[in-house]
Amino acid sequence: MEYTLLPKGFYSCAKKLGIKDNTPDFTVIYSEARAAAAAMFTKNQFCGAPVTVGKEHIKDGFLQAFVINSKNANVATGKQGIEDVHTIISAVADELSISSSDILPSSTGVIGVPLPVKKITEGIPGLKSELKKDGLKDSAEAIMTTDTFAKYRSETIGGVTLCAIAKGSGMIEPNMATMLSYIMTDAQIEPEALKAILNRAVNVSFNMVSIDGDTSTSDTVAAMANGLAGPVDLQKFEQVLTDMLISLTKDLARDGEGATKLVEVQITGAQNDEEAKVMAKSIINSPLVKTAIFGADPNWGRIISTIGNAEYSINVEKVSVSFGDIAVFSDGEPTDSNLEELANYLKGDEITISISLGNGQGKATGWGCDLSYDYVKINGEYTT
Amino acid sequence: MEYTLLPKGFYSCAKKLGIKDNTPDFTVIYSEARAAAAAMFTKNQFCGAPVTVGKEHIKDGFLQAFVINSKNANVATGKQGIEDVHTIISAVADELSISSSDILPSSTGVIGVPLPVKKITEGIPGLKSELKKDGLKDSAEAIMTTDTFAKYRSETIGGVTLCAIAKGSGMIEPNMATMLSYIMTDAQIEPEALKAILNRAVNVSFNMVSIDGDTSTSDTVAAMANGLAGPVDLQKFEQVLTDMLISLTKDLARDGEGATKLVEVQITGAQNDEEAKVMAKSIINSPLVKTAIFGADPNWGRIISTIGNAEYSINVEKVSVSFGDIAVFSDGEPTDSNLEELANYLKGDEITISISLGNGQGKATGWGCDLSYDYVKINGEYTT
Repeated sequence: MEYTLLPKGFYSCAKKLGIKDNTPDFTVIYSEARAAAAAMFTKNQFCGAPVTVGKEHIKDGFLQAFVINSKNANVATGKQGIEDVHTIISAVADELSISSSDILPSSTGVIGVPLPVKKITEGIPGLKSELKKDGLKDSAEAIMTTDTFAKYRSETIGGVTLCAIAKGSGMIEPNMATMLSYIMTDAQIEPEALKAILNRAVNVSFNMVSIDGDTSTSDTVAAMANGLAGPVDLQKFEQVLTDMLISLTKDLARDGEGATKLVEVQITGAQNDEEAKVMAKSIINSPLVKTAIFGADPNWGRIISTIGNAEYSINVEKVSVSFGDIAVFSDGEPTDSNLEELANYLKGDEITISISLGNGQGKATGWGCDLSYDYVKINGEYTT
Repeated sequence: MEYTLLPKGFYSCAKKLGIKDNTPDFTVIYSEARAAAAAMFTKNQFCGAPVTVGKEHIKDGFLQAFVINSKNANVATGKQGIEDVHTIISAVADELSISSSDILPSSTGVIGVPLPVKKITEGIPGLKSELKKDGLKDSAEAIMTTDTFAKYRSETIGGVTLCAIAKGSGMIEPNMATMLSYIMTDAQIEPEALKAILNRAVNVSFNMVSIDGDTSTSDTVAAMANGLAGPVDLQKFEQVLTDMLISLTKDLARDGEGATKLVEVQITGAQNDEEAKVMAKSIINSPLVKTAIFGADPNWGRIISTIGNAEYSINVEKVSVSFGDIAVFSDGEPTDSNLEELANYLKGDEITISISLGNGQGKATGWGCDLSYDYVKINGEYTT
């Protein structure tokens, strides 16, 4: 129960408005005090209408509410899409007696289908009376699409509370932000500091996960800090936030569409961190690697092939590859590893692949999942 | 029968040496005259041992034989891998009384497993007497791995004959070359001219197909022109070769691992051809697009999202998208297309997606396939 409590001065409600089916599909997360805020958005050029509006509203560094619907992304909906966003957030602003420019809107779900605006606006009057202190889990559920479980975290740092929710299961390879994640804290932090901390934490967490290599049109991660619990040690805050977002990132990967395994790829010895990141992503995104892991097939040669496709120069004689503690390739030569032992390791539900390039100090860790029959099923039948 | 005849002076044989199972796994394609030759190879830095040797042997612009085994790629096999190649081609050179430096070797199959050299060398003595004129189809069969049908073509240009074989079904996104393809002609063409023609033809054919976005370690396309039928109109030759390679490219896509549909993506109106190529590849490689096509799910928003992820600037208000004759998005706005009609179109076995960017004269056509349950099955159980 305690775990679903929001930070001081934050309230939320979750509703079933029938946008696509009868599951929770709409949530409002509200701060009684106007809050310092920061956000990062998708780099997809066909970004959703709510992303366009949200980018405007975050500019002054303050927000007072997140308004999020699932089951429809309001993307590729033309000019009508933008009008629909304004209609909805104006109704919420009236209901809560706040400025609509202090609202960050988000939508996630199918692309290219007009938002059922009437269903949404009809659900808004009276919403203020439904707001509650312990709504963290309910809000996390209301933003789910193909997710199979709600993703939320809560931590305290001295007298300060930090909460976050996230969703995402397909069309996941965040580029500067992830599908949807919202962070609420009662700590007192200036907008600029919040923005810098958020950027650094997202770069080693959400920006290092890929389910399918497709960057979504709706990616948004946004934070509000309303200051009601006073100041916080910023270094400590950043560490807790980073760990929290990495933990949520692993949830996203574990809950990737059709996934049966969480895959962690650790790169060391790259020339720099950027090259390590690109390689971690290329391993995580290889359908040949993903299907071999799904089938627990000890076909480590597919890792070798993916490494060899790097756009930068690899010293092939220094490359080593391990699965868990099992070294399969060492300094450019195959080891006499036991393939049966490797196949057994691959039957587990958390797989770690470590790659050492022997070229420098660059390193990165990325997360992904396997590619299963259910991935094909989920994505072959998404709109039908 | 006629169709499996090789050009003048070419002979081949195909054998079952038991490299992995009891299917054809070894072929030698031999020209009685030393032939002008050209080849293109994978850019994968972990290229196979035969690729390393082949790059040396093609340098002087002449070859006399292709020696190819399937079921084992001889990749990531260290120094032993290179020695194994030399052992095999020396034995073939002795048998055929030619120079081993006029042999281009290739291997395709599993990565990281030592080549069973003894099985291969034992199969070579007496091979000369098995060489035959009508071995085109047999050779095409002997180079197959997960392919489900043999891929071969034969055309005449005046008195000249042009034949080609190809294989490839997975780990296919050729980068300057494709999995394996061999071209034989009795036309008289200088090595430099042959190389230029081959490069141009491959760039609009094999280099525009992707099954899974993974560039193989063994990609090789090589041509021999032995001149025994005399000169040829080079422009005409290039046109026939280009059409032949595009036709084989479509075979590769149609026979992609687990594929049920051939997908053709036509990009027009890009700023230049290079940007058009990159976009065609990104659509073809999107697992979300591929699974939607497999499931005949009219989820055209996934095309929009993939377009929006281009690394170069898109004028979203000028973008139009059609499936066959069905326009779903026009000048940045959704059309009132009939989704049922689109779903019906997607049930066909050849899908054409046309994208107009309205930004310039750049264009490209690419080929791929859908992503099915069988893709997961084939790749989850490859080595087991």
